[in-house]
Amino acid sequence: MELLSALSLNELALSFSRVPLFPVFDVSNFIVSILYLKYEPGAVELSRRSPVASWLCAMLYCFGSLILADVLLGDAPIEFFSNNASVLLASAVWYLIFFCPFNLFYKCVSFLPVKLIFVAMKEVGRVRKIAVGIHHAHHHYHHGWFIMIIIGWVKGSGVALMSNFEQLLRGVWKPETNEILQMTFPTKASLYGAILFTLQETRWLPVSKATLIFLCSLFMVSAKVFLTATHSHASPFDTMENFICPVLFGSPSPGDQHHDDHGSSHELHGAPAFHGSQQPAKSKEELNEGSRKRKSKKAE
Amino acid sequence: MELLSALSLNELALSFSRVPLFPVFDVSNFIVSILYLKYEPGAVELSRRSPVASWLCAMLYCFGSLILADVLLGDAPIEFFSNNASVLLASAVWYLIFFCPFNLFYKCVSFLPVKLIFVAMKEVGRVRKIAVGIHHAHHHYHHGWFIMIIIGWVKGSGVALMSNFEQLLRGVWKPETNEILQMTFPTKASLYGAILFTLQETRWLPVSKATLIFLCSLFMVSAKVFLTATHSHASPFDTMENFICPVLFGSPSPGDQHHDDHGSSHELHGAPAFHGSQQPAKSKEELNEGSRKRKSKKAE
Amino acid sequence: MELLSALSLNELALSFSRVPLFPVFDVSNFIVSILYLKYEPGAVELSRRSPVASWLCAMLYCFGSLILADVLLGDAPIEFFSNNASVLLASAVWYLIFFCPFNLFYKCVSFLPVKLIFVAMKEVGRVRKIAVGIHHAHHHYHHGWFIMIIIGWVKGSGVALMSNFEQLLRGVWKPETNEILQMTFPTKASLYGAILFTLQETRWLPVSKATLIFLCSLFMVSAKVFLTATHSHASPFDTMENFICPVLFGSPSPGDQHHDDHGSSHELHGAPAFHGSQQPAKSKEELNEGSRKRKSKKAE
Repeated sequence: MELLSALSLNELALSFSRVPLFPVFDVSNFIVSILYLKYEPGAVELSRRSPVASWLCAMLYCFGSLILADVLLGDAPIEFFSNNASVLLASAVWYLIFFCPFNLFYKCVSFLPVKLIFVAMKEVGRVRKIAVGIHHAHHHYHHGWFIMIIIGWVKGSGVALMSNFEQLLRGVWKPETNEILQMTFPTKASLYGAILFTLQETRWLPVSKATLIFLCSLFMVSAKVFLTATHSHASPFDTMENFICPVLFGSPSPGDQHHDDHGSSHELHGAPAFHGSQQPAKSKEELNEGSRKRKSKKAE
Repeated sequence: MELLSALSLNELALSFSRVPLFPVFDVSNFIVSILYLKYEPGAVELSRRSPVASWLCAMLYCFGSLILADVLLGDAPIEFFSNNASVLLASAVWYLIFFCPFNLFYKCVSFLPVKLIFVAMKEVGRVRKIAVGIHHAHHHYHHGWFIMIIIGWVKGSGVALMSNFEQLLRGVWKPETNEILQMTFPTKASLYGAILFTLQETRWLPVSKATLIFLCSLFMVSAKVFLTATHSHASPFDTMENFICPVLFGSPSPGDQHHDDHGSSHELHGAPAFHGSQQPAKSKEELNEGSRKRKSKKAE
Repeated sequence: MELLSALSLNELALSFSRVPLFPVFDVSNFIVSILYLKYEPGAVELSRRSPVASWLCAMLYCFGSLILADVLLGDAPIEFFSNNASVLLASAVWYLIFFCPFNLFYKCVSFLPVKLIFVAMKEVGRVRKIAVGIHHAHHHYHHGWFIMIIIGWVKGSGVALMSNFEQLLRGVWKPETNEILQMTFPTKASLYGAILFTLQETRWLPVSKATLIFLCSLFMVSAKVFLTATHSHASPFDTMENFICPVLFGSPSPGDQHHDDHGSSHELHGAPAFHGSQQPAKSKEELNEGSRKRKSKKAE
């Protein structure tokens, strides 16, 4: 009888939501994040030419969500650097992934079965970060629905939302796209998760926080592990969005797109310098787009 | 006798300065701001492809001045989002302007006589925001003359001062120009207004704040309505500036400009990637410039 | 006997560390900083076309380190503007350097022997700013080693670390490089100095702060005056770095570089618009790079 109650969903969720993140889950997060920094083109050369810039990028990949949330809430953006243990751990992971002799550490952690475990643990951490972020925002702004959603979103998406500026640090500048224009699965999931947790925090969703953490973690872990294992780019939300978006926001007609490419309105649009080279390079760019998406999907 | 005193300028100004902004003037501000977001090339397609990005842009257009002032004063940039009523109102206006069936709402509010009323009300709000901003800055920094002027300027100009980053959110990047390099009329008027209000706040201008608000509003409303109605690009300050600037700052000699286009100093200047395509596209760019100016003049 | 003790290193260092910076050293800092703003291509035309943008750039050159440190510590970025005396002084220097009749002031202060004196005084101020910054950060975060180093670094390097955004204000955009990717001597020296002062502040370096200030100032003044006088681009740290970096971080193999230029990974890398024009302009760009380095080396 006692055993059964201990196994009940509520108890399981409660004990799951109390597992501390610090050493193990955080290290998994650092490993996966910095792994995807290394996948970025030019990142390895950068680490040789300018270790300081590479280290700063690694820190942004690991702590981007904390920095952005601190900025938005008006706190000091380097506040998290006061947590020496985490920063040292992340620096050690960065050093091992980029400079370990014979690339040994990199080869171990990027071996797919090992990587999938780390990816799963990173997603557990992501859900927990969303919940903590919304609780924190709720503490500051009791009725700030929008603030809670935004902080939760930022906490979940992390560096992706400031990828333009992270790339600038590495000398790369791609203004024609950003994470908000073309949301990847983790960013979308963070947004939807933030809405759910905000509803829970303000008592509109009649479910305990522990249960919600447990269910969201289950969904994120299974979805992300599946996507990573199959190298798939599909998003589990596509069906839902294809159903709701046209009703709410209308659909982009192909005629609009066509008009945009050749119409006169386009010439007023941006610097001609960009257009001249964008049009012949279209097919290349599209390729580019696909690979970027895959990359950043991986990176989350 | 009583009637006469009630009609006196002071009383009129005082009661004018006490009219609450919230529902009516704020909605006019949202309507005009989001109308000019819709005029931006690519904004309609963006709202179909990525409603989240479009909504964020709309919020920047509506609350840009508050965000920028909060950032400069070290407060939380998302503080204003805690004002649920305003955000919901602005979101409703955004939804109606972009997604109303048959474009009905857009057609109504962009009908010139209707639009002129909204433009007039927006200018009333602008003057009030400058006054409030300077009062707030004065409260924090009693002798911070420069801070008062800057905060007043930012509160009046709003999103224009961060247009580069607002465009980046929409995937557009025009680094060769910004609002400070080529100030439009509302930005200039906000700067001059901020100087006047700072002089008033520090008791150098022997006039009551209510009177100053009244006079500035009169000037701004008449100038902006006239400019909008005639689609004119002239600035009422041109005569004054053409008189003062050459005395204080010298004048740009045409030879300098010529040298800048072909001289060797230019090759050291920017990324050659930009120049190669900028020079043949000069005439297009100039056209571009003109239309941008008109656009952003409208946008204020 | 008394004379001898007064001449002892400790006493000398102590009295040196107590010399107030405000009028004389600060003015030297303003003069040298704005001098290097004037060296930037296009800065003179900018001051004619848009005095407001030029003045804002000058303020960033003079107070960039304070602004950036305030931003990182979560304080108001315009806090320093409340110091009216400094801002007025810097504005006067800006006006004299850019608009003095017959360019008289500029010719005086850019005369090499005079300039060397100002450069020396600027370096004294730089070391003091690093020490003050680290003391301030230590006060906020007692065990925040990383925070102390970062704040000290930012205080020493100043506008260089945000040169991308300072350039954007002038309508120039060079995303392919930044100060962290290609550190100039003052930025590197500030980083190493920040590490030394952090070790001193946390009692790992058994030396008094006054002595450390004195020794660092001596090194910086002599190195910077020598580099400025000889127009040299060499960095005194090169030998040390060439010894340590290959051990710690491996060395960039020339093959990597080659691969990066022609390999397929590059095409996935950035916007094709940039590449098309970057490759033919390579030799120009390299020239560009060199002159930029010299410029920003001077600018510090």
